[in-house]
Amino acid sequence: MIVTLLTDYGHDDEFVGVCHGVIRGIAPDAEIMDLTHGIRRFGVRQGAIVLRNTLPYLPSGVHVAVVDPQVGTERRAIALRCQDGRLLVGPDNGLLSLAWEVAGGVDQVVDVSRSPHRLQPASATFHGRDVFAPVAAHLAAGAELADAGEQLEADALELMELPRPRTEEGALVAHALTVDRFGNAALNVGHADLTATNLTLGSTVEVEAGGHGYLATYAATFADVAPGELIIYEDAYRTLAVAINRGDAANALGLASDTEVRLRPQ
Amino acid sequence: MIVTLLTDYGHDDEFVGVCHGVIRGIAPDAEIMDLTHGIRRFGVRQGAIVLRNTLPYLPSGVHVAVVDPQVGTERRAIALRCQDGRLLVGPDNGLLSLAWEVAGGVDQVVDVSRSPHRLQPASATFHGRDVFAPVAAHLAAGAELADAGEQLEADALELMELPRPRTEEGALVAHALTVDRFGNAALNVGHADLTATNLTLGSTVEVEAGGHGYLATYAATFADVAPGELIIYEDAYRTLAVAINRGDAANALGLASDTEVRLRPQ
Amino acid sequence: MIVTLLTDYGHDDEFVGVCHGVIRGIAPDAEIMDLTHGIRRFGVRQGAIVLRNTLPYLPSGVHVAVVDPQVGTERRAIALRCQDGRLLVGPDNGLLSLAWEVAGGVDQVVDVSRSPHRLQPASATFHGRDVFAPVAAHLAAGAELADAGEQLEADALELMELPRPRTEEGALVAHALTVDRFGNAALNVGHADLTATNLTLGSTVEVEAGGHGYLATYAATFADVAPGELIIYEDAYRTLAVAINRGDAANALGLASDTEVRLRPQ
Repeated sequence: MIVTLLTDYGHDDEFVGVCHGVIRGIAPDAEIMDLTHGIRRFGVRQGAIVLRNTLPYLPSGVHVAVVDPQVGTERRAIALRCQDGRLLVGPDNGLLSLAWEVAGGVDQVVDVSRSPHRLQPASATFHGRDVFAPVAAHLAAGAELADAGEQLEADALELMELPRPRTEEGALVAHALTVDRFGNAALNVGHADLTATNLTLGSTVEVEAGGHGYLATYAATFADVAPGELIIYEDAYRTLAVAINRGDAANALGLASDTEVRLRPQ
Repeated sequence: MIVTLLTDYGHDDEFVGVCHGVIRGIAPDAEIMDLTHGIRRFGVRQGAIVLRNTLPYLPSGVHVAVVDPQVGTERRAIALRCQDGRLLVGPDNGLLSLAWEVAGGVDQVVDVSRSPHRLQPASATFHGRDVFAPVAAHLAAGAELADAGEQLEADALELMELPRPRTEEGALVAHALTVDRFGNAALNVGHADLTATNLTLGSTVEVEAGGHGYLATYAATFADVAPGELIIYEDAYRTLAVAINRGDAANALGLASDTEVRLRPQ
Repeated sequence: MIVTLLTDYGHDDEFVGVCHGVIRGIAPDAEIMDLTHGIRRFGVRQGAIVLRNTLPYLPSGVHVAVVDPQVGTERRAIALRCQDGRLLVGPDNGLLSLAWEVAGGVDQVVDVSRSPHRLQPASATFHGRDVFAPVAAHLAAGAELADAGEQLEADALELMELPRPRTEEGALVAHALTVDRFGNAALNVGHADLTATNLTLGSTVEVEAGGHGYLATYAATFADVAPGELIIYEDAYRTLAVAINRGDAANALGLASDTEVRLRPQ
């Protein structure tokens, strides 16, 4: 079975490699796939969005996510089965909640904070290694979910709430949710919200951010405009996003997580 | 079969992990190997050089490369078989061309822009996920190249031209092509060019860059000179390169891609 | 058999991918696991500590480490079997020595500088690719250690000496050894040293670094104090470390490798 990993551990340290080692030691036949370890430090919301967006592209397996500012406290560690059969493992801080929504909801969930699968002694600061990796590995090796911890009610779990866009004085008031390495910023405007607007490919949109207004083209891809020009577009996860062809929109417009962005079709 | 990946996606985002997921879903028995995802954003030439340099060290398989500033436009997406049997997949922007030259040339090539293997609906901005990864995965799983797209003539493909060094007033006029994380800069001077010069190990060479002259030793390895001193040397790909023992030559001499470097044996 | 890799190669270049390619070509059935490639450039001591700390979490296999400022000189390249059966491969500069200590000491060691397993011609600057990767791959594929090079005496090997903490005027005088991406700094104070102090969970400790004094809580985990507050704690490798809850202690206190840190229980 496949085990995928999403964390904010980065690649400068050995955290990821150690988790691989633990999983491999327990489940020699599991296949480990790094989804990303580049989530912003403590970016629980970013991690939740990325996991939700990418899950449909991953083979069904055990999907571990660790962005965990409350590690070592009484926050719960959980493992759960979604209605579509996928298994999710991580802290109970909302990180997994958008993912299980796209996977049909929670079928069964256990509290693995004191799982028999934990490494002993478990550290207080590295639950990726000592709790989440070994629990995931045992599940990948065929252990029953019910044996991984104590049964929980699904409605006791933490949920991640995303800000909703709103319409105000003819403008769509959105927020930047994630920014990628190219400086492309995804907004909290999904395919359905987008369909409700009057945008047509090639039309001009005023993008207001940080008190400044910019003119953008609503386009399909970067190279639909000249280098240096701004586009708004439906990105690869069908989310409205802002980019500059061969440039860095987040830098140019000062977009970071939660920046308000107002869109006015011209 | 092995599938290798070279991109400019970096490791901060989930782009690489999603491509792994897509490949794994289609070709569960393929082995995925990350060659590098650290190509400079849109560094098509750098990507072409790295793929050419490293191909001889990789097992024969499906070699995917994605550095693709024209993604979503009418630039072609291609898959091809080299004379030595390797399969290459990527955009038709010259990125693959140095690699197929070292692999004996093109045996057969198809346009996969509208490949039946694409994910549907294919996004306009993430062809790594929606075109190149699934095409490569189907090839790795045994699909025929001819079934991946429409037959093309090899001479219709884009080629990557590298600048050639020249001799001028007793100086070898070269250009920096790539710079690595250690600040070592590889020049457009290959083993054959180098053999034509009169350089002997231990001799002194003036290196002129950015209007400044520096004295370097032509050496075999970094520690052949004192820490902080400059060397020129034949690097691990038999390309002439500039380095500082325990230092950062690119930073010290202001070397970046395309910087002119004049070498004068003393 | 598993082959783990620890280097200072980073992820910006193709160095890691090429080593994977070489290993895979020689040992198609080996499993390659990246422990970390984020060791500070030439951070031999950091590499030695990370390898020692993480080895117990890795399945037994061939463990390659390359942090090698003397590459291409007469420094030896070695491969060795530990008393617990693990195989270590790397330069003879102390990098492997802390690891073999926790693995029961050296059972057998050979000089692989001119190993028959080397790629030919071997470069002077990329022994990861040309010496260490192929030697490791042949060992993973079942080659005898004795056939990988010339027999050496274990007491001829280089050792890594770590600075010891000392007590001075009621203060524990320690040094920072490693700093992670979160800015958490591990000191040269292990579990045994720590047990010898009078620290109890919840007590206050003055931390002096760079001529400034700070008050910290001795705690189990980050969130035991308010965001922005300083803790000292036993980290996941049972080493005393300094952190700021949701902050960056290394940055705030100016801690880098070798910074002196004085601890005074209040």
